[in-house]
Amino acid sequence: MILSSRISPEVIKKLSLSEMEKLCAELRSYIIDVVYGTGGHLASSLGAVELCVALHRVFTTPEDKIIFDVGHQAYAHKIITGRYKDFCRLRTENGISGFPRPDESLHDAFIAGHASTSISAALGIAKAMEIKGDFHHVISVIGDGALTGGEAYEGLNNASKLKRSFIVILNDNEMSISKNSGAVANYLTQMTSSTKYFETKKRVKEALSKSVIGRELSKSVSGTKELVKFAIFQSNIFENLGYKYLGPINGNNLSELLDVLNVAKQLDYPCIIHIKTKKGKGYLPAEQNSGEYHGIAKRTDSCRNACNDTYSEIAGKYINQLADKDNRICGITAAMKYATGLQHFARNHRERFFDVGIAEEHAVTFAGGLASQDLIPVFCVYSTFIQRGFDQIIHDLAIEQEHVVLAVDRAGFVGEDGETHQGLFDVSMLSLVPKIEIYSPSNDAELRSSLYKAVYRSSGVAAVRYPKGEAVLCDRNDTDYDLRYFKFDKTNKGILIISYGRITEFAKSAAKHMEIDLLQLVKIYPIVEKSVESAEKYDKIIFFEEGIRSGGIGEKFAFELMKKEWKGKYRLIAVDNCFVSYGETESQLAKYKLDIQGMIKETGEFFEQA
Amino acid sequence: MILSSRISPEVIKKLSLSEMEKLCAELRSYIIDVVYGTGGHLASSLGAVELCVALHRVFTTPEDKIIFDVGHQAYAHKIITGRYKDFCRLRTENGISGFPRPDESLHDAFIAGHASTSISAALGIAKAMEIKGDFHHVISVIGDGALTGGEAYEGLNNASKLKRSFIVILNDNEMSISKNSGAVANYLTQMTSSTKYFETKKRVKEALSKSVIGRELSKSVSGTKELVKFAIFQSNIFENLGYKYLGPINGNNLSELLDVLNVAKQLDYPCIIHIKTKKGKGYLPAEQNSGEYHGIAKRTDSCRNACNDTYSEIAGKYINQLADKDNRICGITAAMKYATGLQHFARNHRERFFDVGIAEEHAVTFAGGLASQDLIPVFCVYSTFIQRGFDQIIHDLAIEQEHVVLAVDRAGFVGEDGETHQGLFDVSMLSLVPKIEIYSPSNDAELRSSLYKAVYRSSGVAAVRYPKGEAVLCDRNDTDYDLRYFKFDKTNKGILIISYGRITEFAKSAAKHMEIDLLQLVKIYPIVEKSVESAEKYDKIIFFEEGIRSGGIGEKFAFELMKKEWKGKYRLIAVDNCFVSYGETESQLAKYKLDIQGMIKETGEFFEQA
Repeated sequence: MILSSRISPEVIKKLSLSEMEKLCAELRSYIIDVVYGTGGHLASSLGAVELCVALHRVFTTPEDKIIFDVGHQAYAHKIITGRYKDFCRLRTENGISGFPRPDESLHDAFIAGHASTSISAALGIAKAMEIKGDFHHVISVIGDGALTGGEAYEGLNNASKLKRSFIVILNDNEMSISKNSGAVANYLTQMTSSTKYFETKKRVKEALSKSVIGRELSKSVSGTKELVKFAIFQSNIFENLGYKYLGPINGNNLSELLDVLNVAKQLDYPCIIHIKTKKGKGYLPAEQNSGEYHGIAKRTDSCRNACNDTYSEIAGKYINQLADKDNRICGITAAMKYATGLQHFARNHRERFFDVGIAEEHAVTFAGGLASQDLIPVFCVYSTFIQRGFDQIIHDLAIEQEHVVLAVDRAGFVGEDGETHQGLFDVSMLSLVPKIEIYSPSNDAELRSSLYKAVYRSSGVAAVRYPKGEAVLCDRNDTDYDLRYFKFDKTNKGILIISYGRITEFAKSAAKHMEIDLLQLVKIYPIVEKSVESAEKYDKIIFFEEGIRSGGIGEKFAFELMKKEWKGKYRLIAVDNCFVSYGETESQLAKYKLDIQGMIKETGEFFEQA
Repeated sequence: MILSSRISPEVIKKLSLSEMEKLCAELRSYIIDVVYGTGGHLASSLGAVELCVALHRVFTTPEDKIIFDVGHQAYAHKIITGRYKDFCRLRTENGISGFPRPDESLHDAFIAGHASTSISAALGIAKAMEIKGDFHHVISVIGDGALTGGEAYEGLNNASKLKRSFIVILNDNEMSISKNSGAVANYLTQMTSSTKYFETKKRVKEALSKSVIGRELSKSVSGTKELVKFAIFQSNIFENLGYKYLGPINGNNLSELLDVLNVAKQLDYPCIIHIKTKKGKGYLPAEQNSGEYHGIAKRTDSCRNACNDTYSEIAGKYINQLADKDNRICGITAAMKYATGLQHFARNHRERFFDVGIAEEHAVTFAGGLASQDLIPVFCVYSTFIQRGFDQIIHDLAIEQEHVVLAVDRAGFVGEDGETHQGLFDVSMLSLVPKIEIYSPSNDAELRSSLYKAVYRSSGVAAVRYPKGEAVLCDRNDTDYDLRYFKFDKTNKGILIISYGRITEFAKSAAKHMEIDLLQLVKIYPIVEKSVESAEKYDKIIFFEEGIRSGGIGEKFAFELMKKEWKGKYRLIAVDNCFVSYGETESQLAKYKLDIQGMIKETGEFFEQA
């Protein structure tokens, strides 16, 4: 075994090629072992094992900076850079993050989690080095999926002007989470599949140097030789943008990788290394279906999830059902077809289904375009990723009141993905948009009725937010309410719990247990007048919110009460001015007093106060 | 005169070429006349006069859809499509908008104001037409500046797959607001200046058809002919992305324009028409200095602005001063060097100044990269445009606590630009970001001390927000306070006004006039404990906020009071659940009761209530 707790970049620098290849195999099987227990992003990380080893052979972190995009590909990098042992506690509380985190290791040059940021961050680092006279290397590793995001292009556009080493590695595994699409993806495929580009270029160069052709060309067409040279040697997008293009390279072949990295290391201007890797490499099930193995859940999760449909599945199926009867309904995803449950829609309503790639800004404006022609677009998107479309929601939807439905998935704690992926900001962000309507159902039936209302009773932007994971199933069908009032109090205690969304189930148990009343908000914004009227009759109100406190519904509800000159006591339990790390969703809920025990305890303390 | 109130697309369709040319000249002088009175975007609109006329000659709106990007270029379009008379009330209350607005005219297919959205919106419209079996044309008109924004690329990436007519007109005037930069801009210049691209291509085609070369090539290099053809005929970025490329065309030559539009109209697949126009065309001062004439202020404004520096100027000069003494400070702008007052910095600290183009997402992450290497980036950006960087502020800055200063310009009402540009959302948006600090100074000295504190006393993300226009000058230098307390009440009325930012001046006058106390917040978030302690002593509090109510400081202050079980009466005057149209800043302030008179009236009414 080469792989052990003593593995390090220094060790790798002393290995022979065959030893490095052996190391790659060992890394692969270690990653598979661990990820099957902890959950995580298997396929991307398996594809990038050789790349991580080669990078640490050729470059020296932390002086050289490797910036991973999204960071799904970074597991081998983590193991190599001092986290061999901790890796078995991947994505678990007090373990290590699933994404690069500078506060976890000096070898993680920049945070990653959301796509398409690596080139911009790398350029910032490179410019800082330039200013400080530091000549170390900056390497950004970006997948072809992340390249569909506009920020990657903004980064490329700005970085080409550098007069120093700047290496962008395009890790092309021909798909992001679902199959990649769009012009750039097509182009990459074309570049590599239709011709043996690299060799052919060499041969063209030879051909041109033959005098007969050169002469003929320059005789017949003045100035054309220059053009032909230009066209051939700068004929790909990256060279057009001012980058030296090196590739395509087999990114699972260590020897080729080492060669190209060593070439790139010598250049004192920006270059792009285009490597082709096999997603899931070395693990057959993942190779054959890398979409399914993109992210895998923990063992325990997958057992439990076998019971009920997830909220995503329920939403996806219901949107599909609505679309069966209404041909105005369109489904949009930003590279998350399966994860958002839109595969049903995609299969049945192909012409109205749009996977736009990792491009949330475009998705929102595009939805506005559809809506302007009286179609009804439903954009299914994770809470954390809709942050990318904030400006477009205001500018392209809300001002002209385009009727677009945002199906906001993964709202609330998301568990193991941690800080970068928590769905804790959507309520505060969306509720500041004028004229928006926001629903936060707590079970399958409410989810369906909320989606129905968002589609058919709203006229502008309407959002329905629901959490990750298995849905609570409801035994009622009459779920067409904006709020729901549970009267458990028989002794007139004068205390009220308010909550919304997933944690309503816990609040119900807590309220029942303590025999106090509960007010559930389903339409959470604008705040329904009747909910304030119900609440103001109580002396004490405790509001539980699975989201950031600042700008959330708890604060807004307090304000509504104050407008009515309510004189009672108010307490708000929410996530306050901090980010929430990775760990189990249950323990996140517990930590922020949003599980049954926490609610009982908080309410009890509040109750006892004078 | 051809131009009159009877001008219309139908009239244009009947004109001769020379009559259309005459019309262009008349449009130009009408635009110059009006914009000199009302203010507006002169240079872009002058450059696009021929384009607007040609578009309405060849296409038929509203059935065909023309989507302008940003919309600075759309003045001639507005005049042609039934707004000849109203145009003289451009950007004035109850007049017409400076940007395309579907609620103003059927001929405005989609809203514009923020850059880089037109291709995405156009694609939505085109897809909707496809679904509905409507075969009309969809034309997006995008400037080379807007092309530097990532969303434009996301749109291009997605639209290339269309199997129908889809026309993107790239209006290339070689600059956005300041001189355009970056790889794409360089590439466009190269494409058009180094070779007579279009003709040469033809000649290469002829040359290749000559058997000797073709034969020679195919003999010596198997498969190369295909490659050479591919390289030459698909050798530009747009063709690589799957678009038919038509250009470059002289976009100020009506006859060339009509030819190319008629060709494009025949295509049943996506194409890009690359036109070169002269910004400011036809008005010598604007031609020679189109940066300066990009947007011009109203006559009255420019007189008044002659007195004091604007907040932008003061901020720009001060950041420059700080950078003189501290070589860690970097200045970043997204294509707004002059408008944000960063020209001083750019001149004196060239190596630490970065104009990233219209690319706010990149700008924020790039700043994070700089900060990760212990530099101190200051990103000067309009309030309305920082909405584009929201996700990056959370993800790339706040989670790892990168120390970045956001100098948020044009915060509050912006007057004539209207809905799309109002700086009313930044406080709610930024204050939901964990661990951020936000300052909102009310005069020049507070602005400087706030910037100083953001740079030197914050450790994470710090924002300083200030309004458009002439600064209030302060006679004090001891402005290092987070809040300021004005005691005008001699008779113990028990009423307190709270406000922050620009309107504090009005609040001061109102409070003085009414002899009641005033609390000014300078550090507005997190809410300073001492401000709540001061406030809770009063029976009645009225909070004036120049921003959206939802998630603003007024709501948060109420919540803080409630936590302290304050039992008084609270009123919040802010912009509530609506967008604010164009007009004069003064009248916007008055409309929302945020000027002196409004404050006196609101406070008086509040005071009189039992």
